[in-house]
Order: sequence, then structure tokens, then C-alpha cells
Amino acid sequence: MRMKQTIPSSYVGLKINEWYTHIRQFHVAEAERVKLEVEREIEDMEEDQDLLLYYSLMEFRHRVMLDYIKPFGEDTSQLEFSELLEDIEGNQYKLTGLLEYYFNFFRGMYEFKQKMFVSAMMYYKRAEKNLALVSDDIEKAEFAFKMAEIFYNLKQTYVSMSYAVQALETYQMYETYTVRRIQCEFVIAGNYDDMQYPERALPHLELALDLAKKEGNPRLISSALYNLGNCYEKMGELQKAAEYFEKSVSICKSEKFDNLPHSIYSLTQVLYKQKNDAEAQQKYREGLEIARQYNDELFVELFQFLHALYGKNIDTESVSHTFQFLEEHMLYPYIEELAHDAAQFYIENGQPEKALSFYEKMVHAQKQIQRGDCLYEI
Amino acid sequence: MRMKQTIPSSYVGLKINEWYTHIRQFHVAEAERVKLEVEREIEDMEEDQDLLLYYSLMEFRHRVMLDYIKPFGEDTSQLEFSELLEDIEGNQYKLTGLLEYYFNFFRGMYEFKQKMFVSAMMYYKRAEKNLALVSDDIEKAEFAFKMAEIFYNLKQTYVSMSYAVQALETYQMYETYTVRRIQCEFVIAGNYDDMQYPERALPHLELALDLAKKEGNPRLISSALYNLGNCYEKMGELQKAAEYFEKSVSICKSEKFDNLPHSIYSLTQVLYKQKNDAEAQQKYREGLEIARQYNDELFVELFQFLHALYGKNIDTESVSHTFQFLEEHMLYPYIEELAHDAAQFYIENGQPEKALSFYEKMVHAQKQIQRGDCLYEI
Repeated sequence: MRMKQTIPSSYVGLKINEWYTHIRQFHVAEAERVKLEVEREIEDMEEDQDLLLYYSLMEFRHRVMLDYIKPFGEDTSQLEFSELLEDIEGNQYKLTGLLEYYFNFFRGMYEFKQKMFVSAMMYYKRAEKNLALVSDDIEKAEFAFKMAEIFYNLKQTYVSMSYAVQALETYQMYETYTVRRIQCEFVIAGNYDDMQYPERALPHLELALDLAKKEGNPRLISSALYNLGNCYEKMGELQKAAEYFEKSVSICKSEKFDNLPHSIYSLTQVLYKQKNDAEAQQKYREGLEIARQYNDELFVELFQFLHALYGKNIDTESVSHTFQFLEEHMLYPYIEELAHDAAQFYIENGQPEKALSFYEKMVHAQKQIQRGDCLYEI
Repeated sequence: MRMKQTIPSSYVGLKINEWYTHIRQFHVAEAERVKLEVEREIEDMEEDQDLLLYYSLMEFRHRVMLDYIKPFGEDTSQLEFSELLEDIEGNQYKLTGLLEYYFNFFRGMYEFKQKMFVSAMMYYKRAEKNLALVSDDIEKAEFAFKMAEIFYNLKQTYVSMSYAVQALETYQMYETYTVRRIQCEFVIAGNYDDMQYPERALPHLELALDLAKKEGNPRLISSALYNLGNCYEKMGELQKAAEYFEKSVSICKSEKFDNLPHSIYSLTQVLYKQKNDAEAQQKYREGLEIARQYNDELFVELFQFLHALYGKNIDTESVSHTFQFLEEHMLYPYIEELAHDAAQFYIENGQPEKALSFYEKMVHAQKQIQRGDCLYEI
């Protein structure tokens, strides 16, 4: 038996955009057809108040279109549609603005889901021009949160930070928005991490952990614990890092979360860096097994890398195999980090020539990261 | 004899902000005093249409304040100023919004001049909320250009790019805005450079060069030539890079531009990298002399660095002296670049241990750059 899939609201939003295009071209039959499709999909859709509002606005706009052509019955041959459109958009100034807002907002969300971040940013920025028409505070905060999220993904740290703070200020005023508050704190902490200030991220993550506990939300609790571990690792406090990763792992295990391989991997890495070889070895074996069970190819590779580099005898071939895998999949952030770790390791083991080649790999990866998914062709 | 200095408009803008504060608190005497100061300063100010508009709006707002208190003559003891303020701001909705816009815009420009980029960004973003009230296209383009500029400085590449394109679209429509068009092309090229796509920057710089020649503006011509040299250097085409730097140097010389030391330095660096030792040596001597004449401490150091690293015999002590100087002055972008160059040099000369220590310096500098002038304390 297969569970019925829930349709993401960004997908339905895109369909409403299509509906809007037909409406603005006075394609009545197509508009009616897409309208029906939208209504069918809304029944199986994830909960999303914004989308339902967008739907209602569009339904109203649909009726406006019909009212304008009704006097002419079936025969629309004498109509000048461009003039009608101007007339409608002039009279329905606020409605048009709001529709433009949602049109771009949902298109942005859709692009975000496809990981087309630059394109998502462009649609969100277009939506922002009509944000003043949105009167609800929570809806404005929702928009600011989406902006914080997209700019965090694009590493536009300062911009992301300013939107996250804006969203947080609103969410703090409402008790029912704890989950979003926690997510805002995560984005702020992530930005501090990107700015190389892990110590400033700490209080935000501790607050997020408290709130997540009060909510009793295991996913958010384990994320907060994981992020805290990551923070302490960056600060060089490996013992504390290991403790937090351990706690996060144990929740991921009991809840069967799909990021279990990732959590065990981070724990294993810290144990190796602490030179706690016995425990590291054990976690490596357990983690590799679990990564295989989860069919998580990336983490199978990464566990093998840890063992090859930090295990009893360095396995140079296996190390280069992992880098080959990461390069093929263009996983440059992993390459940057692991190349730096490998360089460090070879320095400590008195092999400067080896270390150098990893530094060169790291610099190359940094360049690729900066090139990013550059979509600008001006 | 000393030339009379021109007052920057951002400075006068800040004074108008002070004037506004007094107006909103109904401090008549102080408002009158600052108004007079502003009027005096405008006479010696650089040309700025935006500032003059801001002044006129404020003068009008000043009169509104006087009208509201006039009926009470000298005796203002019975007035409830907060109610008056609400009344004024309610009635003068558009005026208040525009004043808010200019208030934040000029404060942003002022912060920008002080190199307080994060703070400038925050004021610009506040101004943006009232941008819809600005009706003039050129003024909107001006704002977009300022945004492109600030985000370029903060390395928020994608955001900067989207504003630069927006500004350019307007400037292209007006023949009289060629200088701004060129500046937009520079920002776009700079962003491509930061994205590690020098080849995409090229056509923008070539266009900028053409436009600058048509304008007959030697400063912009030499900047375009310099940026082209920089682009070709990044692309590994050292011969072309040297040719463009050479042309830029010759304009800087005849026009006595203060960035002459910088241009000769870049030329010398490329010549050394080309292993054109004879010419490099000659430019080094000339450049060092000029940097001294210009009292340019940084470039005196940098010329000495080039000679110490690439000269006949490596002068290790002088090399470390330069890094010490750069660290004291927190010039991390220079450290990142020069450490990478030094590492490369030592690899070629078969000294991997030395190369390693420079890679470590480079990684440290990168971290400091990411920390930037992080002013967020949330």
C-alpha cells in the first residue's frame, strides 16, 4: 500500500500563476480548466494559509475577467483585450499588486525547492516591491524569513542577517510561532558561523534548544544539539562538541531521522581529531554500517575517508578515491573542509609535500565555491 | 595659498538630519540655527541635486512646524507637542515619507564615506522602504547604484549584481548619464571578478573603456585600463595584462593621479611573474621612488616585498617585514594574495616547508576577511 503524497504548496502556487496568465490573456476556457486543476490539487495539499489566500484573490480576479466579457456573450471578436486589461488593472489596483506579490512569492518558493537560489532571489525581490500591500504582520514576517533563508543559502551573510532579525522581532511577539522563532535563531547562528564567529552563534543555539524542548519537537531538538556540537568544534572545544553530537545521534537513532549518518559522521570525525582512536574506530564501524543501510552513498564515502586518513595506517589510495568522488559530484564545500583536514594531518605527520598538494586542492575548491551557481549572463 | 575645500553632500545631509530632529521636537531656536548653518554650507558644497531637493523639503517642513505653533506666539507652554507631531505627520503623509527616505539615504552615504559598510547598508535599507514615494526614475536609479556599491563592498555579490543591473537599465536610457553607466559597468565587472569569472567581466570593461574615451574622461579611462589589466592577469594572460597596466600607468603619470603607485606596482608584479626580470627591476626602482614621493607607506612596503621575493636573492627578512606591516594594519586581502604568491614561489623553488607556512598565513587571512567588520551583536 502506498501512502497518498501531499502536494507542496509551491507547486500549486505555480499552477495558480499559470491560471493568472490565462486570465490576463482572457483565455476563458484554459483559465477554467486550470482553475479546476488547482481546486483539485488544493484538496491534497500541505497546509498553507498564504496559498489559500492567493487562491481566493485569484478566484476574485477570475470573476472580474468574466464580468468584463459577459456583456458580449460568446462573441468576443470585437473586444480590445489590451484596453480591457488596462481598465481592470487600473480599477483593481490593490488586487493586482497583491496578485503580483503572490505570483512572485510562490514562483520564488518553487525555484528555492529546485535549489535554483539566484533565480529564487530574483522572484522574491520582485515580490518585495508589493510587500507594502500586505497588511498582516505575520505574513510580512514570513516573507522576511524566506528572504533570510535564501540569502543564507547564497552566503549573502549581512543581508540574510538583517532579514532574520526583522522576522524574529515579529515572531517573538506571538506565542504560537515558536517553530519559526527557532528557525530564525538557526539562520542567525548559521550566519555567525559563516562570519567565523561561532562564539556569537552559541547563545542563539542555546535559546533554540530551550524553545525546542518546550515545544517537545525532537527534530528541532536534535538539530539544535547538532548545531551546538558544530559550534564547539569550530571553537576548538572538541570534548564538548563530541558530547553534543552524541546527544544528537541518540535522538536521530530513536526517531529514525534520515540525517543519522551525518550526525554519526560528525561525531566520528571529532573523536578522531581528539585522538580518541578506540571510540572513533567503533563509531566508524557503526556509522559505515548505518550509511550503507540508509543507501547514503556520500556518507559511505566520507566514513571510508575518515578511516583511511586517521586509521592505523594511512590509506592514500582510499583518500584520493574520496576526493575523486566529491569532485565528480561537485561537492566543493566538503572538498574544502576535508582537504584542509588532510593538509593539517600530513603536516603533523611530517609530510610537507603531501600537505601542500591538499592546500592546492583546497584553494581550487574555494574558487569553485565562489563561482557558485552563477546564473548571471549580462 | 590653500584652496577652499568643497564640502561633501553627505556631510551636509547629516546636518539636515540634525535640523529634522530639532523640527520634530519643536525646538524652534535650534532648528533656526542649524537651518542657517546648512544654508551656509550648501554654498561651498559639491554639486548634488538630491541634497538640494532634501533641503527644499525640509524647508517646507520647517514652515509647517512654525505654522503649527504661530497661533500661540511666544508662549508654547500649553502645547502638547506629541499631538501636534501626530497631526502634522498624518496630514503630510507623503512629505514625511520622503523626508524619512532622504534622512536615511544621506545617513547611509555618510556611513559609507566612513567605511562603516554594515551600518550604511542598514540606513539604505530603511530608506528603501520609502523609495516608492520617489517618483523620478533617475533618482531611483541613483538609489539602486548606491545599493550596488555598498553590497559590492560587503561582498554580497548576488545582491549587488541585481541592483547594478537595475540601475544600468535606467541609465542606458539617458545619454547624459554616461559616467554613472561606466560606474555600473565597473561594479558588474567587479562582482564577476569576485565570483571568479574574470572572462565575464571583460565585455563590461571594454564597453566602459569605449564610453570613457567618448566622454574624454582620463580618470575613468585609466580605471578601465587598469581593471582590464587585472582581468587578464586573473585569466593568466600576463602579456596582455602588462600592456593594459602600462597604458593605465602612462595616463596616471601625465595626469598626476594619486593611484599611480598602485598602477606601477601591479605592472611590476606582472612583469616579475612573467620572469621579465630586467624590466621588472627597472619598474621596481621607479615605483619605489614614486611611492616615496607620494608618501605612500603601503606601496613602499609592497614594492620592497616584490624585490625581496622575486629579486636576485630571496630576502626572507624583508618578506616577513612586509607581512608584519600588513598584519599591523589589518590589510588582510593583501595578505591573502601575497601569501598565496609567496607559497607558489617557494613551491617552484623546491622549498615546501616555507610554502606551507605561507598557505597557513593565507588561510588565517581568509578567516579574518570573513569576520569582516561584523557589527552584529544580536
